[in-house]
Amino acid sequence: MFPRRVLVAPSGFKESLSAPEVAEAIAVGVRRVIPGVHVLQVPIADGGEGTAATLAEATGGRVLPVEVTGPTGQPVASHIALLGGAAQGTAVVEMAAAAGLSLVPRDHRDPTLTTTYGVGELILAALDAGAQRILVGCGDSGTCDGGAGALQALGASITDANGSELPRGGAHLVHAARLDLSGVDARVLETPMTLACNPHNVLTGSRGVARVFGPQKGATPEQVDQLAEGLDRWAELLGQEAVSSATTSDFRTGLGTGASGGLGAGLAAIGATLESRFTALLDSGLAGIDLDELISGTDLVITAEGAIDFQTPRGKVPAEVAQRAARTGVPVLAIAGSLGEGAQDVHDVGIGAIASIIPVPMPLEDAKERGGELLSAATERSLRMMALGAAVEARMTQKRAAARN
Amino acid sequence: MFPRRVLVAPSGFKESLSAPEVAEAIAVGVRRVIPGVHVLQVPIADGGEGTAATLAEATGGRVLPVEVTGPTGQPVASHIALLGGAAQGTAVVEMAAAAGLSLVPRDHRDPTLTTTYGVGELILAALDAGAQRILVGCGDSGTCDGGAGALQALGASITDANGSELPRGGAHLVHAARLDLSGVDARVLETPMTLACNPHNVLTGSRGVARVFGPQKGATPEQVDQLAEGLDRWAELLGQEAVSSATTSDFRTGLGTGASGGLGAGLAAIGATLESRFTALLDSGLAGIDLDELISGTDLVITAEGAIDFQTPRGKVPAEVAQRAARTGVPVLAIAGSLGEGAQDVHDVGIGAIASIIPVPMPLEDAKERGGELLSAATERSLRMMALGAAVEARMTQKRAAARN
Repeated sequence: MFPRRVLVAPSGFKESLSAPEVAEAIAVGVRRVIPGVHVLQVPIADGGEGTAATLAEATGGRVLPVEVTGPTGQPVASHIALLGGAAQGTAVVEMAAAAGLSLVPRDHRDPTLTTTYGVGELILAALDAGAQRILVGCGDSGTCDGGAGALQALGASITDANGSELPRGGAHLVHAARLDLSGVDARVLETPMTLACNPHNVLTGSRGVARVFGPQKGATPEQVDQLAEGLDRWAELLGQEAVSSATTSDFRTGLGTGASGGLGAGLAAIGATLESRFTALLDSGLAGIDLDELISGTDLVITAEGAIDFQTPRGKVPAEVAQRAARTGVPVLAIAGSLGEGAQDVHDVGIGAIASIIPVPMPLEDAKERGGELLSAATERSLRMMALGAAVEARMTQKRAAARN
Repeated sequence: MFPRRVLVAPSGFKESLSAPEVAEAIAVGVRRVIPGVHVLQVPIADGGEGTAATLAEATGGRVLPVEVTGPTGQPVASHIALLGGAAQGTAVVEMAAAAGLSLVPRDHRDPTLTTTYGVGELILAALDAGAQRILVGCGDSGTCDGGAGALQALGASITDANGSELPRGGAHLVHAARLDLSGVDARVLETPMTLACNPHNVLTGSRGVARVFGPQKGATPEQVDQLAEGLDRWAELLGQEAVSSATTSDFRTGLGTGASGGLGAGLAAIGATLESRFTALLDSGLAGIDLDELISGTDLVITAEGAIDFQTPRGKVPAEVAQRAARTGVPVLAIAGSLGEGAQDVHDVGIGAIASIIPVPMPLEDAKERGGELLSAATERSLRMMALGAAVEARMTQKRAAARN
């Protein structure tokens, strides 16, 4: 053995390494064992934090700093990505960079008050920068305003029964009486926009976004009820006014309408397409990546995630990468910062082998600090182990052949 | 891939798992991945602590409790092993079980006072139990008396210039005037005795046992000088009185004469053979193991050690096992409780791949407590990684074949 072409397609390691840094550390380890190997580094974004920077780096594009209104109304230093290479013309708007949960101070978390206004501002910045298409990454949001703030930033008007413009925050949606999209920036309607979202997130009902994600964003049970009621009212208005033919029912339970606290529904009303996040990010070509094609030319795929555990098979990066590799039968190895409970479940979704980067008993902080070095070493060990397996196989084959002669 | 026959030949993990427990945990992991595999468990003793129990268990023999004089003169509950199977008739005397450093309280460590008297008592117990040959495991000693205590226990007389019997402890050797072996139990001289020792340990000179090991056994610089002088005198007496034809010079710098604080020299004087410990333990058949033969029939060797690091290639169990496997080309995998600095050096001595058992950042104590479970899981991961390597190889071979047609 020794694969000649290796595709490295990892996620980032939270609080330790970005996805491009993970890819680089793995590539270093691969090259240590296989001189002259061709390593293709394709760091994978999942739509959430780090998506814009990862895609900019992966495509040779750039990150453009933009100051916007943060989730609590304070200005925040945000950014968009203008992709390069095959994705030239695509701008990436990472919703978490303008309205992410990590932008809300931990002791002030109240999703009835937070707004996606800054997301609308990022979209305008993308248009100002000449974007021909916009990819909106959803995930890690700290909002539950149904995308109302984003629509307002883009020029929509949302008024209550008295004709007053609705203040920011999901708490007020219950009072929304009228939605007027006539003021929306014309460029928005002319520019294709795709949301990379979790398709399982819907706007309303018992599995609606307020009930499922409200509590972890800091909502009390009463606030969850208030948000759910507001989003229900919001779906009605969206159904009436949407530029598409989507109905209220479509907005209530359409796939992805609940993405990022209902941002999915809000942007769908002005014509955005809601797509499963990994379809948008890995298959559509929008992000400059056609993972199937990249995989098909390789001998081995190495993916990685900060923690591999029972949740990994449910739509995390390594599982998505493995699912695509399975189509062409390319073997997949996954390396993790830590292997938690149920890590072995990933074998069921096509990951052939897993490895931890931890060589000795050590505290989490040390592991995070030394992440890159440990990851390179773990990659090296994994490849040597694979080579050993091939050697065992070769020796057994030889012996069988000798026995036949 | 998947090896049909796997030899598991590990060391114990200090303060966590005995060698047989390590072997069992690895075997569990192997069976999880390869149903129907033939796993041969051969836990490896290194001559030091645990050697008697490990060999008893490995050969289906038994451990016989014996109370003896401990290194500081207090009685200690010790034991010998009476081996079974192919090694029936061999008794194992583990010197550390009667005169080991761990039997000396940490704040009373003074190698000028400690004695190997209990080792002589264990040898007598082995003879009483009907031993046809005796294997003495050296290592982890807390003594530096040149084996004088052991000889006294066996019936020898060591007197000073006044004809008084020498008190116990290396401090007094400098006053030894006469050695009389006539009283030594006749069975000792008739029963073959082999010491499994580190051949690099010699009795006297600048690399002598007092200078090299005295300090770590608790000796001050003055005590080191005193011990070195005493052992020099002791070598003279041994050269004069030995039952063999060995000379003073042989006792001074003969290979292994310094083993276990000079126990090697003392027992050599009554006819014991000093052998490199792994030759005695793995190759001689004395311990019921012919590792070369066991290896030759297998597809994969798995060895293990508590910590693999830069010291491992210098005569630790995994290196010794790998050296023997290299003769027949059987691939070797080594698993460690922790992979320290320089662990990758083991590839130079024939270990194809290494793995750590640590899946997540964790404290050392947790790793020790969960040792068996972690080891089984790491074995499983390693074998899956090997299978992945074989799969990559198979796929590349297929592709090449297809390209030729």
